[in-house]
Amino acid sequence: MMDSMEDIAELAKSVMKADRRALSQAITLIESSREDHRIQALDLMDKLRSSDKKAIRVGLSGTPGVGKSTFIESFGTYLTGMGLRVAVLAVDPSSIRSGGSILGDKTRMERLAREPNAFIRPSPSRTHLGGVARRSREAVTICESAGFDIIFIETVGVGQSETIVSEISDVFLLLIAPAGGDELQGVKRGIMEIADLILVNKADGDLKAAASRTRSDYASSLMLLRKRSHDPPGYPLAMTMSALEEERLSEVWNKIDCLIDWRKADGYFYNNRIAQSRFWFKEEIRQGLLSMLDKQEIQEEISLLMNMVDNGEVYPSAAAQKVINKCIGEIE
Amino acid sequence: MMDSMEDIAELAKSVMKADRRALSQAITLIESSREDHRIQALDLMDKLRSSDKKAIRVGLSGTPGVGKSTFIESFGTYLTGMGLRVAVLAVDPSSIRSGGSILGDKTRMERLAREPNAFIRPSPSRTHLGGVARRSREAVTICESAGFDIIFIETVGVGQSETIVSEISDVFLLLIAPAGGDELQGVKRGIMEIADLILVNKADGDLKAAASRTRSDYASSLMLLRKRSHDPPGYPLAMTMSALEEERLSEVWNKIDCLIDWRKADGYFYNNRIAQSRFWFKEEIRQGLLSMLDKQEIQEEISLLMNMVDNGEVYPSAAAQKVINKCIGEIE
Repeated sequence: MMDSMEDIAELAKSVMKADRRALSQAITLIESSREDHRIQALDLMDKLRSSDKKAIRVGLSGTPGVGKSTFIESFGTYLTGMGLRVAVLAVDPSSIRSGGSILGDKTRMERLAREPNAFIRPSPSRTHLGGVARRSREAVTICESAGFDIIFIETVGVGQSETIVSEISDVFLLLIAPAGGDELQGVKRGIMEIADLILVNKADGDLKAAASRTRSDYASSLMLLRKRSHDPPGYPLAMTMSALEEERLSEVWNKIDCLIDWRKADGYFYNNRIAQSRFWFKEEIRQGLLSMLDKQEIQEEISLLMNMVDNGEVYPSAAAQKVINKCIGEIE
Repeated sequence: MMDSMEDIAELAKSVMKADRRALSQAITLIESSREDHRIQALDLMDKLRSSDKKAIRVGLSGTPGVGKSTFIESFGTYLTGMGLRVAVLAVDPSSIRSGGSILGDKTRMERLAREPNAFIRPSPSRTHLGGVARRSREAVTICESAGFDIIFIETVGVGQSETIVSEISDVFLLLIAPAGGDELQGVKRGIMEIADLILVNKADGDLKAAASRTRSDYASSLMLLRKRSHDPPGYPLAMTMSALEEERLSEVWNKIDCLIDWRKADGYFYNNRIAQSRFWFKEEIRQGLLSMLDKQEIQEEISLLMNMVDNGEVYPSAAAQKVINKCIGEIE
């Protein structure tokens, strides 16, 4: 992809100048699983690391149909209208198995995609979960060093991907649709616990009253959660809004902005980033060790021994030890 | 512990003759985390592997106070009374953190402990979760090659340890206490899904009616679970019993025995054991690779780099790569 380390230095410089082609090229590089690309990617990340630019990283989750694309489209355009520079990344857990892709279709965000101050990057089509996490984190660093003010990290609400996104973001938004009854829409407690703002979208037309009731339900259940010592009074909070009619976008921004200011003053903002870096450091060590198992000769050894395990010719612990010895290159 | 490989051969022979001292010594050996002991342990397991003795492995779970010890005491004594040989092992998740131990106190099963055909082994006092799983699985193999007919693997109902136990057992029993109301006692769906028999204990005295209602509640919710193609009609099932008054012990045994016979005829019994061996083979490879991180020089490297990550002097991915390189002994 790159011919030499000098090219990586060039690429880093172009990224920091927010050159869009360089941005795309850099993200493609970190998405590659080829070993030589990986070495270049680490070199690139090291060169971008020293950037003192700091974006606000906004995690966003919600089940399909809740209006995430419309929200990012209208809220993102509102923010660029204020002169802010906005990047949109996607963490797509479905891509792990299906090869499908959210944000694959930029036409869902036509208006924002045309904004010169916006950058939208679809989810890559095929990666394992460890890869998704690393790719997302590194893409955030790339966008941050390119000087974006707000980076959205979007995901579909299906469990594990929210954990990944919350470990990358400074603020976490949960998008909800108005519900008919008074029951919470099967939103898992774990997701409620990481959400800073619950946005009941589609508070427009016929759904206005339902949205208001849904908001109350969520507000009540947020009150039952443990108070977070690092947050101002009233947070986490639930509010209604309409992405379609662009209603209450400034209130949403205001709530995010206040929370960030408070957390910066409190020290939590930077402490949390350090904790996140530690988390990823440890997680990548784990993933890196386990990725040794992906090598072809190890896979072959595993299938060979698996047959012997099936036939009772070797005890599972002993077979495992053989694989481990092979991984660490010991001569048996 | 052992002076040579010949001693291991001797130990294996004594284990297969069901010598109690050898049994204890063998389990102590597999519990050790010392590297030389580990090599001996693998040798021992390899020598015991060829045994064609087959025990029935019975997993047992239930929250504290539900009467697990009393159940094993009275059911175990009932089985030895039938001429069967019974071993009792414990998987104690609390030992991982607290160093506490279930079954630590054999006096809780005084009568069974005195039976010449019974062997009770308390949980070791301090191991990590991977260690607990391996130790339990290897202890089962040791008891099996010693010719025990029934091996109980007991655990406290706290999530992850049930998964471990279900991946070691042929049948899984869930012990429940009679409840006051008609609500299920916060038993997680995951545990319901692995249970073959739900035993509502303490169906005696004042609690008889409550036990009967609780049984109905569980029976109804078992009906909502997906049917298992490998099981006879009516399974999984819920029944009342009393460990204290030794009521319906023969019915419990009958239900276990029928299920095992059916699964053996169906082929599921042996296929399941093969699937379990595969699971442990893969799991031990994972654990073995990750245990490289426990070495002192690696721990030191990690803390050193963690400081640099905190101060933004190195990017987390790059720091992780350094640790991995050190693990696999590459020269940087």
